[in-house]
Amino acid sequence: MDFFFSPKSIAVIGASPNPFKGGNFILKNLINTFRGNIYPVNPKYKIMEGLPCYPSVKEIPDMVDTAIIFVPAREVPRAVRECADKKIPGVIIESAGFAEIGAEGDKLQGELLEIKKQTGIRLWGPNCMGLVDGVQGHVFSFMVPEAVKNGLIPGHVSLIVQSGMLSGGFLMDIVSNRITGINKVCSVGNKIDVDECDLLEYFEKDPQTKVIGLYLESIVDGRRFLKLCKKSSKPIVVLKGGKSVSGAQAAMSHTAALAGNHRVIEGALNQAGVIEAHDFKQMVDLCRCLAVYAQRPAGYGRVAILTASGGAGIVASDFVEEYNLSLANFAGATKNTLEKIFPNWMPVNNPVDIWPAIEASLGKGIDVYREALRALLADKGVDAVLICGFAGNSSVSFNMADIAEKSRQSGKPIFIWLFGLRDAAFAAQTHAREHGVMIFQELQRASECLAAVLHQKNKGHFAKIASDRSARPKLTG
Amino acid sequence: MDFFFSPKSIAVIGASPNPFKGGNFILKNLINTFRGNIYPVNPKYKIMEGLPCYPSVKEIPDMVDTAIIFVPAREVPRAVRECADKKIPGVIIESAGFAEIGAEGDKLQGELLEIKKQTGIRLWGPNCMGLVDGVQGHVFSFMVPEAVKNGLIPGHVSLIVQSGMLSGGFLMDIVSNRITGINKVCSVGNKIDVDECDLLEYFEKDPQTKVIGLYLESIVDGRRFLKLCKKSSKPIVVLKGGKSVSGAQAAMSHTAALAGNHRVIEGALNQAGVIEAHDFKQMVDLCRCLAVYAQRPAGYGRVAILTASGGAGIVASDFVEEYNLSLANFAGATKNTLEKIFPNWMPVNNPVDIWPAIEASLGKGIDVYREALRALLADKGVDAVLICGFAGNSSVSFNMADIAEKSRQSGKPIFIWLFGLRDAAFAAQTHAREHGVMIFQELQRASECLAAVLHQKNKGHFAKIASDRSARPKLTG
Repeated sequence: MDFFFSPKSIAVIGASPNPFKGGNFILKNLINTFRGNIYPVNPKYKIMEGLPCYPSVKEIPDMVDTAIIFVPAREVPRAVRECADKKIPGVIIESAGFAEIGAEGDKLQGELLEIKKQTGIRLWGPNCMGLVDGVQGHVFSFMVPEAVKNGLIPGHVSLIVQSGMLSGGFLMDIVSNRITGINKVCSVGNKIDVDECDLLEYFEKDPQTKVIGLYLESIVDGRRFLKLCKKSSKPIVVLKGGKSVSGAQAAMSHTAALAGNHRVIEGALNQAGVIEAHDFKQMVDLCRCLAVYAQRPAGYGRVAILTASGGAGIVASDFVEEYNLSLANFAGATKNTLEKIFPNWMPVNNPVDIWPAIEASLGKGIDVYREALRALLADKGVDAVLICGFAGNSSVSFNMADIAEKSRQSGKPIFIWLFGLRDAAFAAQTHAREHGVMIFQELQRASECLAAVLHQKNKGHFAKIASDRSARPKLTG
Repeated sequence: MDFFFSPKSIAVIGASPNPFKGGNFILKNLINTFRGNIYPVNPKYKIMEGLPCYPSVKEIPDMVDTAIIFVPAREVPRAVRECADKKIPGVIIESAGFAEIGAEGDKLQGELLEIKKQTGIRLWGPNCMGLVDGVQGHVFSFMVPEAVKNGLIPGHVSLIVQSGMLSGGFLMDIVSNRITGINKVCSVGNKIDVDECDLLEYFEKDPQTKVIGLYLESIVDGRRFLKLCKKSSKPIVVLKGGKSVSGAQAAMSHTAALAGNHRVIEGALNQAGVIEAHDFKQMVDLCRCLAVYAQRPAGYGRVAILTASGGAGIVASDFVEEYNLSLANFAGATKNTLEKIFPNWMPVNNPVDIWPAIEASLGKGIDVYREALRALLADKGVDAVLICGFAGNSSVSFNMADIAEKSRQSGKPIFIWLFGLRDAAFAAQTHAREHGVMIFQELQRASECLAAVLHQKNKGHFAKIASDRSARPKLTG
């Protein structure tokens, strides 16, 4: 599969000079992001975007590692055959108009599979948005070039998405929010050849991928898929589209996917240790957390809540219980430390309601969060800290570098829900990301992501690997 | 209660010149937002922030409508007694240190209640953040002045919040995101006198309030509360903190609230037609939708999904079914119109996958969304439209004014989930809000809010009031 992920040269069959066409987007994205050779193919032009343009791949004078095909569906089989003749090992077919449109498209898909059988060429798609690599910076896709003009944030989350626009939209969302670091995003469409299992296998061996997220409308080979999930050493998050009757019907017309009985799939995924998501951004949030905490931390899921609002602490407690975690009981030493920073009238409890201590400390140069965090993380009865913080008061800002360092040292996750002023919250999010601190816009999301990290089943413990510095989870998304 | 909501003069007992103290924030917020007379009270100063400062309320030469009290808890009873002597009808006690800290504070609360019994003075709080009025622009609270420097967005959502920081944080979140218009926010704290029932009654009669949201840790008089909810003509959304055992314990130490058995409360709330929220921003989202669609639209909850991504349409279909709505079956005329804007190979279905039509229309000046929306809204089998839109491609932008107008004309809700570039999404959100269009960052949230609107139980139908222009829901949050 390396010819897809690390090609040295790419042909674009259906390249276009029209700035409103996908065939132009693909070419421009390659020019902007890919350092290898690029060969536009279109019989109508001799030159395109400053590059020599070829009437057919067969006319390209050099070896080609992969071709992106974006011509009308009926012309795709001939293009693929020419690629096979040219000994191109694999093609990414981004054109739509195949099984998802019914019998006629089905027939075209059959032709493609026949060519694959005869020649061994690997087929990616059709009806997909191709491939993006956050580390190499590659965009092999017809998404609008302006969407990725600021570059991608490299990271350890790899996604497999059975939907074109979605993977593009996903990426733009992720990139522009600057929260989640992306390794590879694969839009697989109708997946007539390359499918989620092939990519799972590839990512399992890929040292840069720490967590795998999948949006699937169907599972091609359930048995193989579950086996791969079960034996995977990396967390796997699945959002399954088409759970409902109407959703399944929509999936049928979208990527010709047979969605299957969801109850059965759900049970099987759970048994295979897969974390199930139910919404798009939730899936990405789960992935970015598991990329940092890919090993289950030690302990029993005993959470300390550190909150700037009593009300937030109460609702956080409700979520902690809902997600089968528990509130930590503090040791005497922890209580003593907290009593020192608390006003006299304030009893020490979990949730730790920190606001009165912050008010009492204002103007005194004491970092109350820092003191409280130090005490909580030193407590052997605390496995993780959930902070409900307030963004907007310039006199109370989080020292994200300190939080990241404390989490690393203690091996205990620190998750933050922030409410307050939008710009302050966004700045804190960006700042948090740079330091690999997990931060959220909704308390429930923070809680469920923390639960996903603390409930990981098949992984080792933080404690076990704590002596090996290099193996310790790095706090970078 | 008008002396709380529309006073002509306010005293601040515990006003401070120290810019790090709440007593200074309260005074500054009044100076910035309140046009009536302001009387700082503090025996240590003769003048404060340019205003004459009084040693006691008794020394104020004029009538005072309400006093905000922010002195240490043990000094509060004396301050309240002086207010009663001064014939001030009601006081807002923002100091903490009462029942929430145990026996000593309990005793102080008892003293306050005794004064109330003897004098009839109304007590708001203690342990609260006071009151904010989005329409009059009032901030009677110790929240940091910079948080509201850009003003509040007036609207029809009134909130009752049993938590101080939360109401402040809520507001800052709401204000800075510029999505939800606020009418009044009441932080009631320990609510030893003024409670959720008093405020519910007040809001029921308040013509500016169209929907009421409550965050409660306890319900003082369950019977009265449920009766008020049941007969309310306005949608009521409740987030109940302290559902779990640990959450209830936290509530006990936060506002001395007895949280009650949640299963029982849940059933009773449901029977009373209350919409239950489970997270903070979700509660606000539900409120802003119900403020616009405070009357249940006609029809049977048949939803048309208009999506820029096939995958999003599938997951939206799953949510539609999960929330007991259904996918609309389109009439022949609707299909004909859609077929005209769709590429030839594309069959018409619900979800309406609009992306291929957008691509086909690029550069041709056709507003595909507009055409599709017009057809969907004209269809008698469609009760609402859920748009899964993509933010970031400058060639595809939503005409929010047009969407608002179409929703108004048809009486059918149009809800939008946007994914894509952050800044484009934020711009679209702001733009949508100006036109009263419901827009969301998460698909699940869009779906559940649409369901809350379509499932309203005790309200009239859009159809019934469609002939009365003035009674028709206005599309302003």
